[in-house]
Amino acid sequence: MENNINFKDYITKMAQAARIASLELANFSTAEKNKCLKAIAKAIEANKDSIKAANNLDIKKAKEDGLSSAMIDRLTLTDKRIQGMVENFEQVATLDDPVGDIIKSWERPNGLKISKIRVPIGVIGIIFESRPNVTCEAVSLCLKSGNAVILRGGKEALNSNVILAKIISQTIGEQKFPYKSVQMIDNINREIVNEFLKLNDYIDLIIPRGGESLIRAVVQNSTIPVIKHYKGVCHTYIDENADYQTAENIVINAKTQRPGVCNALETLLIHEKSAGAMLPELIKALKSKGVEIRGCEKTKAIVNDINSATKEDWSAEYLELILAVKVVKNIDEAIKHINTYGSKHSDAIVTNNNHNAAKFMQRVDASAVFVNASTRFNDGGEFGFGAEIGISTDKLHARGPMALEELTTYKYLVKGEGQIRS
Amino acid sequence: MENNINFKDYITKMAQAARIASLELANFSTAEKNKCLKAIAKAIEANKDSIKAANNLDIKKAKEDGLSSAMIDRLTLTDKRIQGMVENFEQVATLDDPVGDIIKSWERPNGLKISKIRVPIGVIGIIFESRPNVTCEAVSLCLKSGNAVILRGGKEALNSNVILAKIISQTIGEQKFPYKSVQMIDNINREIVNEFLKLNDYIDLIIPRGGESLIRAVVQNSTIPVIKHYKGVCHTYIDENADYQTAENIVINAKTQRPGVCNALETLLIHEKSAGAMLPELIKALKSKGVEIRGCEKTKAIVNDINSATKEDWSAEYLELILAVKVVKNIDEAIKHINTYGSKHSDAIVTNNNHNAAKFMQRVDASAVFVNASTRFNDGGEFGFGAEIGISTDKLHARGPMALEELTTYKYLVKGEGQIRS
Repeated sequence: MENNINFKDYITKMAQAARIASLELANFSTAEKNKCLKAIAKAIEANKDSIKAANNLDIKKAKEDGLSSAMIDRLTLTDKRIQGMVENFEQVATLDDPVGDIIKSWERPNGLKISKIRVPIGVIGIIFESRPNVTCEAVSLCLKSGNAVILRGGKEALNSNVILAKIISQTIGEQKFPYKSVQMIDNINREIVNEFLKLNDYIDLIIPRGGESLIRAVVQNSTIPVIKHYKGVCHTYIDENADYQTAENIVINAKTQRPGVCNALETLLIHEKSAGAMLPELIKALKSKGVEIRGCEKTKAIVNDINSATKEDWSAEYLELILAVKVVKNIDEAIKHINTYGSKHSDAIVTNNNHNAAKFMQRVDASAVFVNASTRFNDGGEFGFGAEIGISTDKLHARGPMALEELTTYKYLVKGEGQIRS
Repeated sequence: MENNINFKDYITKMAQAARIASLELANFSTAEKNKCLKAIAKAIEANKDSIKAANNLDIKKAKEDGLSSAMIDRLTLTDKRIQGMVENFEQVATLDDPVGDIIKSWERPNGLKISKIRVPIGVIGIIFESRPNVTCEAVSLCLKSGNAVILRGGKEALNSNVILAKIISQTIGEQKFPYKSVQMIDNINREIVNEFLKLNDYIDLIIPRGGESLIRAVVQNSTIPVIKHYKGVCHTYIDENADYQTAENIVINAKTQRPGVCNALETLLIHEKSAGAMLPELIKALKSKGVEIRGCEKTKAIVNDINSATKEDWSAEYLELILAVKVVKNIDEAIKHINTYGSKHSDAIVTNNNHNAAKFMQRVDASAVFVNASTRFNDGGEFGFGAEIGISTDKLHARGPMALEELTTYKYLVKGEGQIRS
């Protein structure tokens, strides 16, 4: 691309083309969309070698730039990961299509027949960081739900993303789908993102996927609605008289099964009447799994050799083997703590008391509230949605796992026989 | 208020208090909320004289400031308008409460029982212009749906809004509701609004109500999700072989019954095979109602003595007795015109052809699409929702009439028996 390009022009043209494509795309049948998704799967498989060659350019650049081995690992497309992309397209083709669903319908006293129908949102912008497989996840779900998509990946994965987008575009063209249904921003200049985020006349939704700083920057600059995942400061509260083994199983699972993800446990709360009997054994079990404990004063009075929690720990999303622990007077203090320091993501209670379970579910303000289960279940796959484009910590439109249904909106169809308003 | 106040402090404290109030408010029963709404109705009736006295201060100021008589009219609280506020609270008390509704529930193969439950959104900010009765409409719907609300009205209505908020706050306190569930920003400095719009840690949703420039300014500055109504560029398309009388009734109704509202007709499209026979009579009927016609070249070739439409007319929201008229080749051109120049609000087709009706409903991208009915029916009351806080031209969360259900979100409740993720 030329240096003297007008970024605003470049991205505005893409957005206008996406809007026009979206109006066509909305009319394709489920069978046509599934056929197209399967064709994309085949095309990715057939072009595995060119994908790997492009990916190698990204890896080479990343090494030259001294990126961390963790970053390079996230960037690398192995045969297995490419196979994962192929399977992703095949699997999304098997999911139910929400478009066209009648949410409700009714008749008014004046004879007007009203239906509320699920339709695609229109044009979705996805801004993401280094993993190139996000391209495939986003494209598969957007196409299946009838939405045009404009993608902007991280600069580290530019070559990988561009070739994936090229293979996808070519395939959807061959399938007689609107060619501009999928577009990749192939220029990494940041100014383009700022212009992109102002195009609310053509783009209906922005979904940023990445770290909190990326997301805050998007929210700060966007005039387009944004659905986002800020962070997962997830709690488990062990109630009075909870079963110890259930509590240990859930806490160990939520903290250690995959500590780097958003629905992992970050703060353990425990009723003061359970703390004395349970904390020594529970903390021993956690430590044996390599978990660093940061306890409140009361925790430290019960268990030796642990670090002190500071106020910052109560709102920390560690994403590693660290756990903040706080002894609370009762369920009310637990709920208040969660609603004060949590991130409205996933919170659990371990209890044998139905009244307390109900109170916790009613009063905790989170996308998913668990009773006697691990917070790790807050996930589109685990909920049975078949896929997810992310987990929303917002309250509007989509909350929690965001799958195909959350990629649709609705419109009202009103049929009359000449009715006018008096 | 002191001049040296720290605006950020002032509004942050309000928002934090609203967040805490919202967590309590979410737990009140429908019966308690209805009792509170009825008590507010009584309190407004009982304080009619003080409301009118405060309103007189606003009117006096408005006259001194040389506001237009239309503005002063909008500002004025007559006995009838105060009675309207009283009835508004009484009526919202009779509506169904969406909070607690089970949207769906299912069980997973691992035994987890998941329910998706309707809950209040949390804290809603309403920014509105001069009509003080918006205070009552917003408060009644927010309270009924269990949401705390922070209001910021226009400076012209400050005294009226402050006294209304005071009466409401006092009543909700007496009813043992959280006192900070309803708060009015009583300082008109614009800096406060800018700080307000950044408080996404405490406020879940902003609803601006007013002219397009107010709304664009809110969208530009807000880090909080905004649901908004930009404008209503509504179309009626008269198809080939449409019934003339049905078409005339609908067009006259949509254009003239209340031209100043968002669902009024702004552009008429007509099939070229209907134009010759229908336009002379239809335009005559429109002119007899005082409507100025701005026609395309083909329209002008059929009917004399009308103004020419310019490109600006195709996207104009006149809100007065002006109508743009365009002859189109066929339904496809009509749909394309609407999707290009419309505002995704309300669009209608007049037709006898079921195939064309279906095509129009499928392809027009608007919150409500009408077949053989006036666009004026796109309204919460006319849809049977009992009330509305506005009509959304957004596609996310709420599209079209926004009533109690649209003032809720959901959370997932997940009940297990010790399940952990493997």
